[in-house]
Amino acid sequence: MTKERSMVLVKPRHMELRTFDIPEIDDDSFLLKVNLVTICGGDPIEYEGRNVKAHYPMILGHEMVGTIEKIGEAAARHYGVDVGDRVNVEPYILCGQCDYCLSGYYQFCTRSKIYGVNMSCEYPPHLWGAYGEYLYGAPGSKVHKIDPAVSDEAAALSSVLGNGVRWIRTKAQVMFGEAVVVLGVGAQGLATIIAAKEAGADPIIVVGREGNPLKWTLAQEFGAHHLLDLGRETDALDRVRELTGGRLADVVVECTGAEAMMQLGFELIRPVGRYVMIGTCGFDRRALITDMVVFKEIQIFGGLGQSWDTEAAVKIINSRNYALEKMITHVFPLERADEAIHTFMSQPDKALRVAIKP
Amino acid sequence: MTKERSMVLVKPRHMELRTFDIPEIDDDSFLLKVNLVTICGGDPIEYEGRNVKAHYPMILGHEMVGTIEKIGEAAARHYGVDVGDRVNVEPYILCGQCDYCLSGYYQFCTRSKIYGVNMSCEYPPHLWGAYGEYLYGAPGSKVHKIDPAVSDEAAALSSVLGNGVRWIRTKAQVMFGEAVVVLGVGAQGLATIIAAKEAGADPIIVVGREGNPLKWTLAQEFGAHHLLDLGRETDALDRVRELTGGRLADVVVECTGAEAMMQLGFELIRPVGRYVMIGTCGFDRRALITDMVVFKEIQIFGGLGQSWDTEAAVKIINSRNYALEKMITHVFPLERADEAIHTFMSQPDKALRVAIKP
Amino acid sequence: MTKERSMVLVKPRHMELRTFDIPEIDDDSFLLKVNLVTICGGDPIEYEGRNVKAHYPMILGHEMVGTIEKIGEAAARHYGVDVGDRVNVEPYILCGQCDYCLSGYYQFCTRSKIYGVNMSCEYPPHLWGAYGEYLYGAPGSKVHKIDPAVSDEAAALSSVLGNGVRWIRTKAQVMFGEAVVVLGVGAQGLATIIAAKEAGADPIIVVGREGNPLKWTLAQEFGAHHLLDLGRETDALDRVRELTGGRLADVVVECTGAEAMMQLGFELIRPVGRYVMIGTCGFDRRALITDMVVFKEIQIFGGLGQSWDTEAAVKIINSRNYALEKMITHVFPLERADEAIHTFMSQPDKALRVAIKP
Amino acid sequence: MTKERSMVLVKPRHMELRTFDIPEIDDDSFLLKVNLVTICGGDPIEYEGRNVKAHYPMILGHEMVGTIEKIGEAAARHYGVDVGDRVNVEPYILCGQCDYCLSGYYQFCTRSKIYGVNMSCEYPPHLWGAYGEYLYGAPGSKVHKIDPAVSDEAAALSSVLGNGVRWIRTKAQVMFGEAVVVLGVGAQGLATIIAAKEAGADPIIVVGREGNPLKWTLAQEFGAHHLLDLGRETDALDRVRELTGGRLADVVVECTGAEAMMQLGFELIRPVGRYVMIGTCGFDRRALITDMVVFKEIQIFGGLGQSWDTEAAVKIINSRNYALEKMITHVFPLERADEAIHTFMSQPDKALRVAIKP
Repeated sequence: MTKERSMVLVKPRHMELRTFDIPEIDDDSFLLKVNLVTICGGDPIEYEGRNVKAHYPMILGHEMVGTIEKIGEAAARHYGVDVGDRVNVEPYILCGQCDYCLSGYYQFCTRSKIYGVNMSCEYPPHLWGAYGEYLYGAPGSKVHKIDPAVSDEAAALSSVLGNGVRWIRTKAQVMFGEAVVVLGVGAQGLATIIAAKEAGADPIIVVGREGNPLKWTLAQEFGAHHLLDLGRETDALDRVRELTGGRLADVVVECTGAEAMMQLGFELIRPVGRYVMIGTCGFDRRALITDMVVFKEIQIFGGLGQSWDTEAAVKIINSRNYALEKMITHVFPLERADEAIHTFMSQPDKALRVAIKP
Repeated sequence: MTKERSMVLVKPRHMELRTFDIPEIDDDSFLLKVNLVTICGGDPIEYEGRNVKAHYPMILGHEMVGTIEKIGEAAARHYGVDVGDRVNVEPYILCGQCDYCLSGYYQFCTRSKIYGVNMSCEYPPHLWGAYGEYLYGAPGSKVHKIDPAVSDEAAALSSVLGNGVRWIRTKAQVMFGEAVVVLGVGAQGLATIIAAKEAGADPIIVVGREGNPLKWTLAQEFGAHHLLDLGRETDALDRVRELTGGRLADVVVECTGAEAMMQLGFELIRPVGRYVMIGTCGFDRRALITDMVVFKEIQIFGGLGQSWDTEAAVKIINSRNYALEKMITHVFPLERADEAIHTFMSQPDKALRVAIKP
Repeated sequence: MTKERSMVLVKPRHMELRTFDIPEIDDDSFLLKVNLVTICGGDPIEYEGRNVKAHYPMILGHEMVGTIEKIGEAAARHYGVDVGDRVNVEPYILCGQCDYCLSGYYQFCTRSKIYGVNMSCEYPPHLWGAYGEYLYGAPGSKVHKIDPAVSDEAAALSSVLGNGVRWIRTKAQVMFGEAVVVLGVGAQGLATIIAAKEAGADPIIVVGREGNPLKWTLAQEFGAHHLLDLGRETDALDRVRELTGGRLADVVVECTGAEAMMQLGFELIRPVGRYVMIGTCGFDRRALITDMVVFKEIQIFGGLGQSWDTEAAVKIINSRNYALEKMITHVFPLERADEAIHTFMSQPDKALRVAIKP
Repeated sequence: MTKERSMVLVKPRHMELRTFDIPEIDDDSFLLKVNLVTICGGDPIEYEGRNVKAHYPMILGHEMVGTIEKIGEAAARHYGVDVGDRVNVEPYILCGQCDYCLSGYYQFCTRSKIYGVNMSCEYPPHLWGAYGEYLYGAPGSKVHKIDPAVSDEAAALSSVLGNGVRWIRTKAQVMFGEAVVVLGVGAQGLATIIAAKEAGADPIIVVGREGNPLKWTLAQEFGAHHLLDLGRETDALDRVRELTGGRLADVVVECTGAEAMMQLGFELIRPVGRYVMIGTCGFDRRALITDMVVFKEIQIFGGLGQSWDTEAAVKIINSRNYALEKMITHVFPLERADEAIHTFMSQPDKALRVAIKP
């Protein structure tokens, strides 16, 4: 077989299944047979044409698990994997030369190349996204071996959990015994809960609106000690004060990007607490009482991507201590990718994570 | 003499000169003859009744220099000062027992006592503010000895410069060779410039509107390498990019609390840069593009007060390397305190710092 | 009853049971009925007269659990405890005024007062150590409430576990997924293992000599993933390299003070790794290859005492997730305190922790 | 001209001038005409055959300034330099792929390639050291442009000053107003003084033996506030206590590797102070009272090389605020390289820095 099929986003909101040549592999590259790809919360941004750095036509997909089908000798040695191994490939491709790559922040690589996000499939060897049967593994990739006992569903969420690791471990540097409040119970929130649990946070308090009972069940199963449903709680501040012995939260992770939630985070945090801001809102403005940042000396850490965080995430996934696969609520075949992304966009509460199985 | 006069803020916007008994001093306290007090940017908040933690009647004034007139033996030993010494007394009185006092954050003392800010003069021994001939030096004060060669005008600004030290050294932890942008050229901005100079920041870029030429002259004299007047510059972002070799600012210190400036700071900072937020706006909302915090992983540090920063500030003042006294544009006698505060409030551009000489 | 008995160390190596008046309690102090006290690894230093800061006659004992028998109103409010509560009292008494107390390092208080370590019982109210029926709870103490379900044996080890918390959380700032090597399996080593477990360290590798099987059993029970017995292992470096995927240890905690072990730590750690040095050796010299510190840029953190670490330790003890009481191998009545300390000193392998029950 | 001459260290202690072809330059590399190279304190290690990672025959030399004679287009863009520019090239060549390179620690690159230190000149294109007319500029180099007004003598010391920057800024993170003690007044010590000055350290206290008056003159000229000559001072501890107002040093930088000095550093530092250890001693053992590290909670930071520190060093050198060229006490032509290195080795006091001018 020398051909494969990938779903091409020809232009915003227009997808088309196309056939490509399977690329040649040299000493430093590899070929990945895609097992499963999940739709990232960011995929709709490219789908709808709101990412100015995207280049169409393109193949979406960067939350993936696949099987190494071919690999160059140097690449096999460098990544420590071989043909037949199941792996997660991170979204970012590192140039390895710019100041950001060389100082641990490859998500800010000045020559930014991100699988499924900003590379046109007109650029050879074309297979730069995981909404397809195959992905081209370029030099500078980051590759993590998945244990045979782990399901594809769990493995595909490596970079989602990598996010949780980044917010909790790299950004907030949560220490055991600290009180963590997670605002929002989507995939980011759930990944954050797992990371907080691993860090020994206590208590872990989740604040949100109980739209989908599955989210709340998973929040609890993944380690949340307390769930505050804003639809029922009369006063979240009072509750958090009570649950933290009057101290308020050492750490807040804001995952929603909603103005009211962002502001609530300023209330729930103690003086000099750490506030990880990761929820986005399409570059809209958010009107916040910034004086609270000043008068409480709040420390806010913006959080983007996962650089050097996915190693720890894959270690957790390989431990099989958390049933991450339960986060995947829908699976579609490649042909129905368009339906998949619409399902994800139209049912934010029900469709926690939607997967495509090429 | 057993009586003294202090200017009492009987209720918001209503001041009255009153006579008090000069307090007795025990082993742990002292009596300060006030030489000079400057009007802090926060004084109008109590003056206008906008600080819910203020208790009237009260005596304003917490940026001061005075002379030790009496001091208990234990206090003399503890503070390392004696009768006749000229000293700065910090605003905060430490309880020395709460978690915040004991971990280096005494500005968040849970039993908060602040000279001239939140203590009623009905509470004995009454003299809790520096708009008066004498101040009572309570146990738990922080006291810094001023060199004889330093002017009262410079010495009174110890806690103003302590702020600059906090923003630059404690919060942003500026290292030499880093690019610092200061937004705003009031007293806070000027103090920040001095601290940035001491830290070896290079370049130091000041952004503001040239209302009062004195401010710009002082900014330059205190160490700013570049002044960007928003009234003239067509594109501050372009200029900062150029002045930093394309990297943008490592550190931004926002001193204005104005929405446009706060947002401009998000533009001028590099990915993972440190943004010190200290400008306030009376608990109004500020509409900001928070996605920039996320997508650049900006680190924001709210900055309040000076805990453990005034030591370094007084060391700088004692070195006499900077003519801080030039920041004082007006001096009034105690009787005209009301006029003094009105001058400060009504001429923000001209009245850089207004002093009262009891 | 107005009298109590305490065991007085009249001079080095000479103990005597004496009778004291039970002290009066004022608003800021309390009276503790001692339930159990364990012999700290440091107690022999005062017993043998090797601590130049000790003042004889004195009452030893600072690892304790007791019951509040009387307490002043302010103290009850401040500590959040009341008569009848079982509590741990930390060794250090804070002055609350010196720079070290006020910046989170009260173990370096310049007016150092430590229960059972450096205060003579000639100084009223005499009961400054826990080898006795009662302890005087001075203002400036740190007090932690113990859950009713926790045994005295576990509760007495609060400051021992506080040490583990300090080495792992405060000093090494271990993040989950990091490889931690613990050198030595005494009480310090075991406390370190518990803290490493709480922090999510993985793997936790313990290196020592299997003298007492109990130690190894507890090491495993408390969370160690691998035990390397230097009596059997041919090459600890090879094993650690293998167990860490070639990376070596991110963190080493050296608990023995033995030259060979200290040097071994330099071998087992990766470049820029964190090495917590807490093992002591009576101010002897240790001949080490310091070039390894340079060429690997090792970061060494000396570790002393537990300031702000016992809160987290008590939280862990109250969770009852670890059977700390198993660390106590011997219990003696107060009258046999001398025998107790000799048992501890003469059987370092067997007598993991020796307790005295007044 | 297609040939050049370099001084080859054929085997330990045996140097020979040889002729090589001038290498071809591709898109990613460059050719450097060496203007001046200084003899690093480490050069004798390879010269005497004590570095097990050195491969003979080899060309020494990694502290250099030269002129770009040819450069590939990609390299010119990447480094921001062009033909005719004078530059410093750092010793380390980055692989850009290993975990250490990608996280800011390229001196620990797992495929370690260091100009003049560990690469044989049998490996094409041969010119891997700066004791020669030309140096081959490999991909992965770090290159810094020198201002025309700066002398070759000063520019050659870029990585020496980069060391000082690393010890003070990256390792100790010295803040202005902190008390810094520098142990030793060789080239490392002098570079440390300059960096401490830039950081605003105050006081800067230098401790050593006044062998060569030039060193002491330069120490003072570069910013030291106090010089303590151990040959005259009766008690360095007393003096440092006095000069720091009783606090002792916040930071100690130990540059000698001598046992007595290393131990002295433990005495002069305050509790929880930062101790940068960079003096080496050929992997001998140093007998130190390690209990002082424990009882004072000293933080020791091993310091090696300059990764990401030379940028700041070159900025300082380009400012021409310090006459670094005065550190060069001897200059030899290439033919007399052997004499140069013997001069350096035999007169440690007089020969502060010895240069070779090819």
